[in-house]
Amino acid sequence: MPSIGVIGGGQLARMMQPAAIALGIELKVFAETENSSAHLTATTIGDYTDWDQLFAFANQVDVITFDHEHVPTYLLERLVENSIPVRPGPKALIHAQNKLVMRRKLSELGLPQPAWRAASSAGEISDFLKQYGPKIIVKTPIGGYDGKGVRVVSEIEQVSDWLSNIDAFGGELLLEQKVDFKRELAQLSARRPSGEIVTWPLVATYQAEGVCSEVIAPAPEPADFEAARETALKIASGLEVVGVMAVELFETQEGAIVVNELAMRPHNSGHFSIEGSRTSQFEQHLRAVLDLPLGATDMADQYAVMFNLLGVNATNSFVENYPVAMAQFPNVKFHLYEKSPRAGRKMGHLTLTGTDLEKLIADGNSCRSLLYQQ
Amino acid sequence: MPSIGVIGGGQLARMMQPAAIALGIELKVFAETENSSAHLTATTIGDYTDWDQLFAFANQVDVITFDHEHVPTYLLERLVENSIPVRPGPKALIHAQNKLVMRRKLSELGLPQPAWRAASSAGEISDFLKQYGPKIIVKTPIGGYDGKGVRVVSEIEQVSDWLSNIDAFGGELLLEQKVDFKRELAQLSARRPSGEIVTWPLVATYQAEGVCSEVIAPAPEPADFEAARETALKIASGLEVVGVMAVELFETQEGAIVVNELAMRPHNSGHFSIEGSRTSQFEQHLRAVLDLPLGATDMADQYAVMFNLLGVNATNSFVENYPVAMAQFPNVKFHLYEKSPRAGRKMGHLTLTGTDLEKLIADGNSCRSLLYQQ
Repeated sequence: MPSIGVIGGGQLARMMQPAAIALGIELKVFAETENSSAHLTATTIGDYTDWDQLFAFANQVDVITFDHEHVPTYLLERLVENSIPVRPGPKALIHAQNKLVMRRKLSELGLPQPAWRAASSAGEISDFLKQYGPKIIVKTPIGGYDGKGVRVVSEIEQVSDWLSNIDAFGGELLLEQKVDFKRELAQLSARRPSGEIVTWPLVATYQAEGVCSEVIAPAPEPADFEAARETALKIASGLEVVGVMAVELFETQEGAIVVNELAMRPHNSGHFSIEGSRTSQFEQHLRAVLDLPLGATDMADQYAVMFNLLGVNATNSFVENYPVAMAQFPNVKFHLYEKSPRAGRKMGHLTLTGTDLEKLIADGNSCRSLLYQQ
Repeated sequence: MPSIGVIGGGQLARMMQPAAIALGIELKVFAETENSSAHLTATTIGDYTDWDQLFAFANQVDVITFDHEHVPTYLLERLVENSIPVRPGPKALIHAQNKLVMRRKLSELGLPQPAWRAASSAGEISDFLKQYGPKIIVKTPIGGYDGKGVRVVSEIEQVSDWLSNIDAFGGELLLEQKVDFKRELAQLSARRPSGEIVTWPLVATYQAEGVCSEVIAPAPEPADFEAARETALKIASGLEVVGVMAVELFETQEGAIVVNELAMRPHNSGHFSIEGSRTSQFEQHLRAVLDLPLGATDMADQYAVMFNLLGVNATNSFVENYPVAMAQFPNVKFHLYEKSPRAGRKMGHLTLTGTDLEKLIADGNSCRSLLYQQ
């Protein structure tokens, strides 16, 4: 029985479990807290930045993979030196951990990106503002997600705190042109060590306050499916990614795509695949890190729409509203992550599949409203 | 967070787990052994016929349900007396535990059955043989499954061991007319305490040596879908079943249906529903025992076919053959139960969904052959 060790006890580790149960694969999770979302399979509770704990955990499994991208690279390198398979490996993962490393690599690969540069001084930021302003995007190279570590900047003072603390970010900030995008897209793929790569249909993602709110799969036409697919294939093979990768994309007003961010793990934009695809991103990730042949990625229905459930306060965990929501929407698939309620926190999601996209969206919104009720 | 306690650690308890994870419901399993198929959620390992162990387990959960039908009724009655919700309740469950009780009740409800009678002597069996022979079916009222406790009988000597030990069977054997059936069907339904009942499409089941081998959903036409549905609805409401129930049916040469057996739990004939239905039988069972509104039961694709994986020997656990089987059949969904290999044992199953039934069947057979290879 092959076994996989997942570092991080969040909802992504949690959602790998049903796939592991189906495949008859053992999953062990290194969680940060007792009451993690993945508590069911948490075999270690501790600090993944502590080498001794990390190494002891890694020795219990056949391969290490991730729920998040926060494990320091030097620790992963050390696991590799100790002959422990780490998938994706640190050489690939660094591109999802550090946005400057990612930009440099994508430039090298000739892939479509917003204009960007590294900056370590106010003068460099001013120059970039003059060229691409009135507004630019400034990012900390590491540590950002769900809108954190990202600012829209029109005056240098808006990042003076980051500049005065720049050593904490490796001495450089990432400046990016603010893309006048029509919408956001995401291209999901999976690659296994032997080189096989598959892609899912391109999806459209809709953000609210920097956090993913809805996903439509496949992205409503017109969209450059082929360019998105080619971009993902080039990144997956160019960086030798192993496992699922999400390439977040901007679609420009002209319909071109440029790469926004990378995630090397199952991703919120791929939750639709649990019901919407022949193979879910979670099953595929397990297959990929074990170097098993990858599953079919065609849609299981014409459309799938996914609605995130974000916490509304510290008490409503949505379960209370199951009776009314389930009675009205027998077609909706409910997913809750067993996280303590907190306003804005990703608490779960809903998925609807079918052929009438407008109705799926309307039903998903109505169902979510019922769950959000106090 | 509602919690459900499942008695029995088999594959049915195992397959409830992914549904519990999605819904954010806590599942606890009372397993017989350390290495049960449902070991991941086994919180008690012990003897479910021991009242103290059973009661301690039951006090940790909101409702008790089952992986199998072997818990003695008097223990379940005692749980109910102690205000513990048992679903399905002992008054319903007795019909799935005792085939004579079931026959009497179905006669009372006027439902289609083979000719039958209770017999406690060789003379009664001889009479029945004369009337319905040359061959009849003799069953022990309790304890039979997967062909055990069932014999095709043409001479009284074939059941002399049962007759001489008849007290062990409650003093009676069940005699049934041997139905000249065209094929076997199964009608799955779910009912919740508030009375809501849903049915899935009627399926065709194919046995090999008394054990389910394949299932096609929906059953290929012509089939009396309405009669099967009506029969299940009458049984579910007439017996006040709570949870999933499978009604195993014979389809006579004339196309009529008669009830063969009942199971009050998720059932092998419903495994197709994990991918093949909007709501799987496992999710539905959890919803039903918690008295939550039931999910949609329409097909997720035109057809679903399910192939059981039966152990071929004591060493091949099928995982070894994943690489070759997955490479050739990216559309097949694999389910393994983590049971020690043994010839003939239910070790897992495969599901294929799509529109080309002949191809689904051919692919399923080929994929199973690859997994069976030594």
